[in-house]
Amino acid sequence: MAGTLDAKGAILIKQFWSSRIQNLTPYVPGEQPKSKLIKLNTNENPYPPSPKVLEAIRAATNQDLRMYPDPDGSRLRETIGGYYGLSTDQVFLGNGSDEILAFCFQAFFSPGEPIVFPDITYTFYQVYCQFFDIPYRTIPLDHYLSVPVQAFCGDFKGVVLANPNAPTGKAIPVCKIRMILEGNPNGVVLVDEAYVDFGGDSAVSLIDSYPNLIVVKTMSKSRSLAGLRVGYALGHPNLIEALNYVKNSFNSYTLDRLALVGGEAAIRDDAYFRAMVAKVSLIRNRTAVRLKKLGFCVTESTANFLFISHDKAPARELFTFLRECGILVRYFDKPRIDNHLRVTVGTEEEMDTFCTVVQKILEEQYHAI
Amino acid sequence: MAGTLDAKGAILIKQFWSSRIQNLTPYVPGEQPKSKLIKLNTNENPYPPSPKVLEAIRAATNQDLRMYPDPDGSRLRETIGGYYGLSTDQVFLGNGSDEILAFCFQAFFSPGEPIVFPDITYTFYQVYCQFFDIPYRTIPLDHYLSVPVQAFCGDFKGVVLANPNAPTGKAIPVCKIRMILEGNPNGVVLVDEAYVDFGGDSAVSLIDSYPNLIVVKTMSKSRSLAGLRVGYALGHPNLIEALNYVKNSFNSYTLDRLALVGGEAAIRDDAYFRAMVAKVSLIRNRTAVRLKKLGFCVTESTANFLFISHDKAPARELFTFLRECGILVRYFDKPRIDNHLRVTVGTEEEMDTFCTVVQKILEEQYHAI
Repeated sequence: MAGTLDAKGAILIKQFWSSRIQNLTPYVPGEQPKSKLIKLNTNENPYPPSPKVLEAIRAATNQDLRMYPDPDGSRLRETIGGYYGLSTDQVFLGNGSDEILAFCFQAFFSPGEPIVFPDITYTFYQVYCQFFDIPYRTIPLDHYLSVPVQAFCGDFKGVVLANPNAPTGKAIPVCKIRMILEGNPNGVVLVDEAYVDFGGDSAVSLIDSYPNLIVVKTMSKSRSLAGLRVGYALGHPNLIEALNYVKNSFNSYTLDRLALVGGEAAIRDDAYFRAMVAKVSLIRNRTAVRLKKLGFCVTESTANFLFISHDKAPARELFTFLRECGILVRYFDKPRIDNHLRVTVGTEEEMDTFCTVVQKILEEQYHAI
Repeated sequence: MAGTLDAKGAILIKQFWSSRIQNLTPYVPGEQPKSKLIKLNTNENPYPPSPKVLEAIRAATNQDLRMYPDPDGSRLRETIGGYYGLSTDQVFLGNGSDEILAFCFQAFFSPGEPIVFPDITYTFYQVYCQFFDIPYRTIPLDHYLSVPVQAFCGDFKGVVLANPNAPTGKAIPVCKIRMILEGNPNGVVLVDEAYVDFGGDSAVSLIDSYPNLIVVKTMSKSRSLAGLRVGYALGHPNLIEALNYVKNSFNSYTLDRLALVGGEAAIRDDAYFRAMVAKVSLIRNRTAVRLKKLGFCVTESTANFLFISHDKAPARELFTFLRECGILVRYFDKPRIDNHLRVTVGTEEEMDTFCTVVQKILEEQYHAI
């Protein structure tokens, strides 16, 4: 039995912990600082949600909160289905896309049947595998940090891809997703499109052709609702039914009444959504140009973040200098990407400050400009 | 592979379903009717949440929703800890108590190590066992539908008790919970206190004495917030740490920003809470007296529902007659309780209507009065 230390320094053995969590290493989310920092570390949208979302939530903040929400979220599912040209039974809702990913790993992947995902991707995938006892193999991204499509066509029992990938920001064209689906007819291909709205190519158009495709999306990024916890999955009704099996063996009511109405208003206000996504994408592209001028290597991102490295300024140090200057970005201490920083696209003003501060650090600390 | 039918009648095999869900029977929540019925079927509170809760949620419905919530819910945990005289690290938060129960089953109970719970209790417990591959044994309630304390003292690897029990409403005195803790020093004793605020005896006072006690609570019933999804668990920091391991291997942000502030306001408005709980308890007791006069056998409930049977009117029929009269209650088609109905305590007016309608049914259909 492993020992841990409590606040008073006493040894607390894991006597009462189940066998499944004895050796678990949970996911560590990006820091949510309590002090005022320019927060470019968790890929939140710098712009607020649609005013219509706030209005809808305020209207639903009433005595009906005493009652359970609709466990099926029928109205929101219908709205989402309509938006994507799908039927309601092709839509599943969850408490953010992380919950849906967890449900997918339980619903589609089995102990003893290895699945694959890239070596560099959202780190939660390997946490799910470990937690749910699913064997996995990672396939290395190529030298340019792109997904090597052929290597993913191996008739695997499961394939998980973030598109665009995190933390690289690089997109996989939908024709390549199709190739991967063709190359894996016997397993579920899960495409995590958390960031796709900022310029990626969605695989939703393939859903009617491939009964083994599940596409997972979130309102946390492009719809500025990280604080409301609304995610959804799109796929064949048979896969959605499997997700409902899992959900109803876990928690019947995962979305509260306010999340259901807020999510619906967010989908309905498409003009606002498009304007915000365009704004963030424009700032991203401008920031990328500026950082390249400062000597950064910047991967071609279609997400709301940039993945950057500088050959004269080690990323780990840069992270610390930035933090000292009140700017929080994300650093991953992992092989192949330990000289990169992931920088969320903030407002124009925030990115101006970021570029100015970075330039100053490069000049003063590294004489690199 | 099992076959299911889709909407068009085609056979959909479970080809893409994981081995863990091939034979799963998920939980079926009580009906959430879309038409206007007197809804006495899911143990919701008939009274609205505190006005201060609505106020707090409205104030938090702002641009900050673009940002993730505090994944640790520190402020709410501190508030709950303070309320019960516990420290913050003795408090865990979840998306309703069902999510917390699911986390507890994963954190504390292991495949190959049987746990026990009563034969008649919350049906989700056996769904969790099935889903998480935890062997279990049910121990029969005694003839009076009470928990036989001695039978639960068997040095088990896990004990799960709803207190008061559902759907009977009967409480287990805290001295008996203590006996069960003494009788199971090597496993976690989970006490599900979803309904305890309506008159039961809480085991929270035992937390500092028993490092293997976890108490699970919800704001859905006594705090009128079923629609907001806030539950919490109280126990030794070591058990709370185990729950955090599970949560952070599943979904880092299970409570949204509005649930966190609403929950905090609900705990702070203790006067409102006490008044509502007293009101519901009074209506329950008055209804019980009236139903007994109509010839019903009524278990002694300390919850916000009554568990009733009538020897002249079969429960299944009564359920149907009531539904035809626009009143929805809960019927469980299970051995030993298939002649009972579970009736949520509604407003005074609703319970008046319920009693009047029931009396009419008994007279007209069964000539039983």
